[in-house]
Amino acid sequence: MKNQDTTPLRGVYAAVLTPVDDDLEPNKKAFIAHCRWLLANGCDGLAPLGTTGEANSFSVAQRLALIETSAGAGLPMGKFITGTGSCALADAVALTKAALAAGSGGALLLPPFYYKNPSEEGLFAFFSEVVQRVGDARLRLYLYHFPQMSAVPITASLIARLKNAYGDVIAGLKDSSGDWNYSAKLLEEFPGFGVFSGSEQFLLANLRAGGVGCISASTNVTAPMAQAVYRAWQRPEAEDLQKALTAARLALQAFPFQGGLKELVAGMTGDRQWRNPLPPNRPLTAAQRDDMLARLHDMPGMRAILEPA
Amino acid sequence: MKNQDTTPLRGVYAAVLTPVDDDLEPNKKAFIAHCRWLLANGCDGLAPLGTTGEANSFSVAQRLALIETSAGAGLPMGKFITGTGSCALADAVALTKAALAAGSGGALLLPPFYYKNPSEEGLFAFFSEVVQRVGDARLRLYLYHFPQMSAVPITASLIARLKNAYGDVIAGLKDSSGDWNYSAKLLEEFPGFGVFSGSEQFLLANLRAGGVGCISASTNVTAPMAQAVYRAWQRPEAEDLQKALTAARLALQAFPFQGGLKELVAGMTGDRQWRNPLPPNRPLTAAQRDDMLARLHDMPGMRAILEPA
Repeated sequence: MKNQDTTPLRGVYAAVLTPVDDDLEPNKKAFIAHCRWLLANGCDGLAPLGTTGEANSFSVAQRLALIETSAGAGLPMGKFITGTGSCALADAVALTKAALAAGSGGALLLPPFYYKNPSEEGLFAFFSEVVQRVGDARLRLYLYHFPQMSAVPITASLIARLKNAYGDVIAGLKDSSGDWNYSAKLLEEFPGFGVFSGSEQFLLANLRAGGVGCISASTNVTAPMAQAVYRAWQRPEAEDLQKALTAARLALQAFPFQGGLKELVAGMTGDRQWRNPLPPNRPLTAAQRDDMLARLHDMPGMRAILEPA
Repeated sequence: MKNQDTTPLRGVYAAVLTPVDDDLEPNKKAFIAHCRWLLANGCDGLAPLGTTGEANSFSVAQRLALIETSAGAGLPMGKFITGTGSCALADAVALTKAALAAGSGGALLLPPFYYKNPSEEGLFAFFSEVVQRVGDARLRLYLYHFPQMSAVPITASLIARLKNAYGDVIAGLKDSSGDWNYSAKLLEEFPGFGVFSGSEQFLLANLRAGGVGCISASTNVTAPMAQAVYRAWQRPEAEDLQKALTAARLALQAFPFQGGLKELVAGMTGDRQWRNPLPPNRPLTAAQRDDMLARLHDMPGMRAILEPA
């Protein structure tokens, strides 16, 4: 393990998009360049290989290669929360070990998401096996609560059991439910738990309630606006900054997410490979693209990002 | 490719359970022994590495090793329909290639099941990439329709597009929806399509409607009873045989499926490792086990299987 510092992870995170080349292999060069842009434009840290990064659509070998590439490129791995989830225990363990070995500050772990309605006992067994097989006290796991996508919620009761068994290793949670009340409930029940909101729409509310920041798909483009909120969150002007940020987020999520965000990065970088879709995700239609660009163009904050002077 | 014959695949199939050793690795010896028992006791063919086989809970490496082990053990691979699904295109391709190279008569392919509500266009792109990257006209794909588990249905419209593009390569479908009307509709719309019912409860109805058989979890133990129905399906006595088979199936599915079936095989083989649960699945509780055994003991057909003279 290298690079790792022990600063608690917090702030604005992007759930980093993964570009693919024409053969549908991860485009490592474009990926690293995008990571650098994000870190230079408002991101405190990065969360690659999550839902937005289409991790589950890549093979384990492709994911491992992307982790190694990131470390090899000298990115600040200690600020990374790398997605290492898999339905397969052995793969989740291998990915989590690799992320830790590469210096990743945290690992974002989905529950096993193939079987529906698993018992709490079964989920506890899965996460326990991961923690025990990784076998490293420096591990910092962030549980990934995204019931609309995984269909397997991370309940407060499960968190309590895991924290009781593994303490600081169970470092936090990404709440992608879109239900702000759930984050609030967890922060009340588990003070100091590292709760990231899955949407920058709730960034200010989350920070005020004791949460640590956001890990969001749309911060792949809204990062500068999200950072403005993060810097100002204890000051009155945070309200207006959050309003502008929320408007941008809501406009973006009105379109297919992967396709829309990749379209915007393609436009910003001039690299057409960013538009390549990885099945089953699809690119925007021309009409969707025009509609999205028109809506974003009317927002000064977004215009400054998409069309820098 | 070896072993492969060109007889259309039909009859009674078990979705083969995968035993794990105390370290949660596939127990290859017990797996092969169970495959042999199934083939000697009513199964016309085998469908390993599906939902019942907990394929998605095993790493790609573990799945590939199990395919090689089956071929190496001299099992009749031409009668296999091997589960090769993965959310990751590259893994689905690697597994399907390996199954074909091992002589597997068919491959049972899930849709990519992480992203919910994917477009038909996106699903078509995924299956198309698999077919084209495998690039072998001998491939026989069985689409895996299990909306309760995958959350991604295989629609008639998608089947039509795939059959139109790839002809005989799109050989059939496993209908695990539990909705017999869906199988009937597909058989009407696609005459000759290789529709397997996902439950032996619908075996007789499926055969009468032009379907080819069943691929079922519970045939891991009910195979002798299911074979009796299959042999008799054009004769009047088939009705009563199906009634007894249906009763057994309904009793079994009243309990957690993996756990219950593994408990029964543990009892039949005397091998306690069959009880090892692979997270997130769990074993039966003692009360569930006693309840299940009592119910099955009252059925002469099941008693003959579980307690042979």
